[in-house]
Amino acid sequence: MSSSDIFIGETIGTAILILLGGGVCAAVTLKASKARNAGWLAIAFGWGFAVLTAVYTSAPLSGAHLNPAVTLALALKDGGWSDVPVYWGGQLLGAMIGATLVWVAYYGQFHAHLTDSEIVGGPGAQDTKAAEAREAQAGPVLGIFSTGPEIRHAVMNLATEVIGTVVLVLAVLTQGLNDQGNGLGTLGALITALVVVAVGLSLGGPTGYAINPARDLGPRIVHALLPLPNKGGSDWSYAWIPVVGPLIGGAVAAGIYNVAFA
Amino acid sequence: MSSSDIFIGETIGTAILILLGGGVCAAVTLKASKARNAGWLAIAFGWGFAVLTAVYTSAPLSGAHLNPAVTLALALKDGGWSDVPVYWGGQLLGAMIGATLVWVAYYGQFHAHLTDSEIVGGPGAQDTKAAEAREAQAGPVLGIFSTGPEIRHAVMNLATEVIGTVVLVLAVLTQGLNDQGNGLGTLGALITALVVVAVGLSLGGPTGYAINPARDLGPRIVHALLPLPNKGGSDWSYAWIPVVGPLIGGAVAAGIYNVAFA
Amino acid sequence: MSSSDIFIGETIGTAILILLGGGVCAAVTLKASKARNAGWLAIAFGWGFAVLTAVYTSAPLSGAHLNPAVTLALALKDGGWSDVPVYWGGQLLGAMIGATLVWVAYYGQFHAHLTDSEIVGGPGAQDTKAAEAREAQAGPVLGIFSTGPEIRHAVMNLATEVIGTVVLVLAVLTQGLNDQGNGLGTLGALITALVVVAVGLSLGGPTGYAINPARDLGPRIVHALLPLPNKGGSDWSYAWIPVVGPLIGGAVAAGIYNVAFA
Amino acid sequence: MSSSDIFIGETIGTAILILLGGGVCAAVTLKASKARNAGWLAIAFGWGFAVLTAVYTSAPLSGAHLNPAVTLALALKDGGWSDVPVYWGGQLLGAMIGATLVWVAYYGQFHAHLTDSEIVGGPGAQDTKAAEAREAQAGPVLGIFSTGPEIRHAVMNLATEVIGTVVLVLAVLTQGLNDQGNGLGTLGALITALVVVAVGLSLGGPTGYAINPARDLGPRIVHALLPLPNKGGSDWSYAWIPVVGPLIGGAVAAGIYNVAFA
Repeated sequence: MSSSDIFIGETIGTAILILLGGGVCAAVTLKASKARNAGWLAIAFGWGFAVLTAVYTSAPLSGAHLNPAVTLALALKDGGWSDVPVYWGGQLLGAMIGATLVWVAYYGQFHAHLTDSEIVGGPGAQDTKAAEAREAQAGPVLGIFSTGPEIRHAVMNLATEVIGTVVLVLAVLTQGLNDQGNGLGTLGALITALVVVAVGLSLGGPTGYAINPARDLGPRIVHALLPLPNKGGSDWSYAWIPVVGPLIGGAVAAGIYNVAFA
Repeated sequence: MSSSDIFIGETIGTAILILLGGGVCAAVTLKASKARNAGWLAIAFGWGFAVLTAVYTSAPLSGAHLNPAVTLALALKDGGWSDVPVYWGGQLLGAMIGATLVWVAYYGQFHAHLTDSEIVGGPGAQDTKAAEAREAQAGPVLGIFSTGPEIRHAVMNLATEVIGTVVLVLAVLTQGLNDQGNGLGTLGALITALVVVAVGLSLGGPTGYAINPARDLGPRIVHALLPLPNKGGSDWSYAWIPVVGPLIGGAVAAGIYNVAFA
Repeated sequence: MSSSDIFIGETIGTAILILLGGGVCAAVTLKASKARNAGWLAIAFGWGFAVLTAVYTSAPLSGAHLNPAVTLALALKDGGWSDVPVYWGGQLLGAMIGATLVWVAYYGQFHAHLTDSEIVGGPGAQDTKAAEAREAQAGPVLGIFSTGPEIRHAVMNLATEVIGTVVLVLAVLTQGLNDQGNGLGTLGALITALVVVAVGLSLGGPTGYAINPARDLGPRIVHALLPLPNKGGSDWSYAWIPVVGPLIGGAVAAGIYNVAFA
Repeated sequence: MSSSDIFIGETIGTAILILLGGGVCAAVTLKASKARNAGWLAIAFGWGFAVLTAVYTSAPLSGAHLNPAVTLALALKDGGWSDVPVYWGGQLLGAMIGATLVWVAYYGQFHAHLTDSEIVGGPGAQDTKAAEAREAQAGPVLGIFSTGPEIRHAVMNLATEVIGTVVLVLAVLTQGLNDQGNGLGTLGALITALVVVAVGLSLGGPTGYAINPARDLGPRIVHALLPLPNKGGSDWSYAWIPVVGPLIGGAVAAGIYNVAFA
């Protein structure tokens, strides 16, 4: 694969991943969305099938890592470190594009949610008190872009992200073995998608399962940049955990693989 | 494939697609349905597995486009423009047949829902006031046939439909690449179905994800023609958006494909 | 396939189908079940994966028809009428065994539900008034065994069952074409299962989607025979519809297949 | 396969199975979890995709039994009894590791749930009355580790576990036949996962479907050992049923297989 194919593939793939993944969070969260309050099962399936769509579309170009932790683990397993910056760059750019597209697709819903007035409506929500009340609710809007913990505690949150990422990356790494042994590998995109549903259902409760540094950092940057009214802060004090945790998880998975499976 | 196989295949396939897709909307919406209020996840899976059933059944005859935007994108990618009218004609006819079959399958439920009396019941709901109240609720019945926006705004609604269709069609177009590379293509019908679930969960919130001109226009015509009591208007002012948006989306996806993947 | 393999395969397969399909109805309906009120999506997925499990298990012995309407359609398509009684006999016997196993697996729940006392409890619910009240609620318990309409009307109910069965059987019949053409056929059990989920979500609202004569008649016989307290009637006046409707549907599907696909 | 590959594969695979399976129970049960009250469908899919992830990851090393009842049935079918203790040992160890990891991933949630104070909070819940009230609610926390019956009755509970395990193991045993006959076997991990979803939806109501001795016993031991405040008892009087029932079920399935399929 050429560097440009890798970069373009990862950019397109991660953009689709975050468009659909952030999209389901918007769909379930925002006012004036038909899917509002569809529940955690919708979120878990939404992110899983987001992975399916993104992997399936970008696999012919870049092999569909779409996750810096996967790229790190594959480099620790197979080498090829010179491609790592290309993968990571495409992933971060794609995540930012995807988050921006969520904002475009749900433009009216964001406005209605954050201002208590529909986009076609008048000035509406401008007195200070209501704005303060909305500020307090800004969490759910940041939650459309990035993850956050239910109970804030660096060591615990980091541990949860590491554990979730180990499960995901170990399944990705063993794909090659299944491919040769019994043909399961041809189902790789689908299996990986359902593993992501599993991690979401089972390990998403405490921190919202970033398990992917680009998935969290790219949309958080977009949240900081977008001209959303009453959007609240971007919670930068937490931002390092869903970056560092998944990278540690990827490295641990590669270590387990190299000891037990290689 | 002969023109008659294409036409018959697309007619049968799109009829199944709309029978099952419109069916799940009826199931979740109408009074006296066992699935009433089953929620957005039921709708998203219902439409996804409707695609699966329809594609699987019609693929041997016509290749199972079942969507004018898919036909347009494949023509932009591969040529074969002379078949386009045959595909589009079969798709529109099939969609109308499917919507009519929804009405047949849910005949009693439509009657009970719109008249507040069961089909076996007496005259029941005939005073003017109740009829007016029902008129105001007619939206949900149109929603069994066609899509509609939560916030009505042409540019925003068009953008949402374009984005959703790009995701769907790009996944369809890359199927051929996956087919040769790693065998994923043999799972095409299932993957496409789950991509439709993804688009529904993630991008369906604002407009109800037509992402297919025939899916929206055919049933809207049927809604206008059927002798449903108190059915309300067919919202023709919105009807161009779920036709034009998906066609633009199909063309954009073909453009992305030709630049990045070809 | 020998007649004994066919009979044993259909008996085992249909027993598993009804054990799991009736089981999910029991799980969602009965008091003292952990899955109580899990909703329509649980029922639709439960029946779909019941089909998956049953088809996968019995396919090596009998080809896994598990449905007299499928057997009829395949005979109309391929001949082999002499095996039809063997298939039908195994299917009916298997359905009766499966329904009995649901009763065994949920023995305590049936008792608690029908008598308002747990199986380990005392005499509890014996005064006449409470018994009458329970009699009125006996419908849900019959619903664990057999289907019933929300709005009772022979022509409408028959039409709904015919339409649902046509969709199912047409997908089964085209499986052979997909098998040779593009390898989809190897996924047959999974595709068929998801088609059943689709029919359940989309066409199950009016009558509960029997779409299989054995699925309805076998458990209804068992309901009539089992020593369940306060079980109410077995609704024999409706029993012909989920037998005749699916058989008509199977024949219609075979006709469509022979005209359009053969 | 070498004994060490078997042991390591079963340990890793069963650890993933219980981490994800116990994880979804924690996610749905505990305070301060984003997935709280996600419902029975989430539990059934969570356990199913836990099986998928675990089987897929460990299959290259050990063939992915992950269940002493499966190991027993395969030994009754194929021989190879000398490996049975290695499989069982790895399964029990893996289950204990997995349950411990659930505790790590949900550390803050367990604390908040059992003490009514967040992990960062003060002493909070220390008066005797509140502690007694919590003791009464300790059941749900044991339910994150092990199964328990809704209606306690040894014969009935045993019967339910036997029936559920027969369905699961019979599907596993017929996998080899499907593999050679029509290629379905290459989908084995996915099919098995969906069979587990089916058993959960359909037969999980009365006892919570252990259908796997290691899945129940390993986490119960961990529950007894972990320093959880107010955790309540580990219900050892019930512990033999989810061990003996699945083993009987595995043996019955092997018997059915040897009579009908071999």
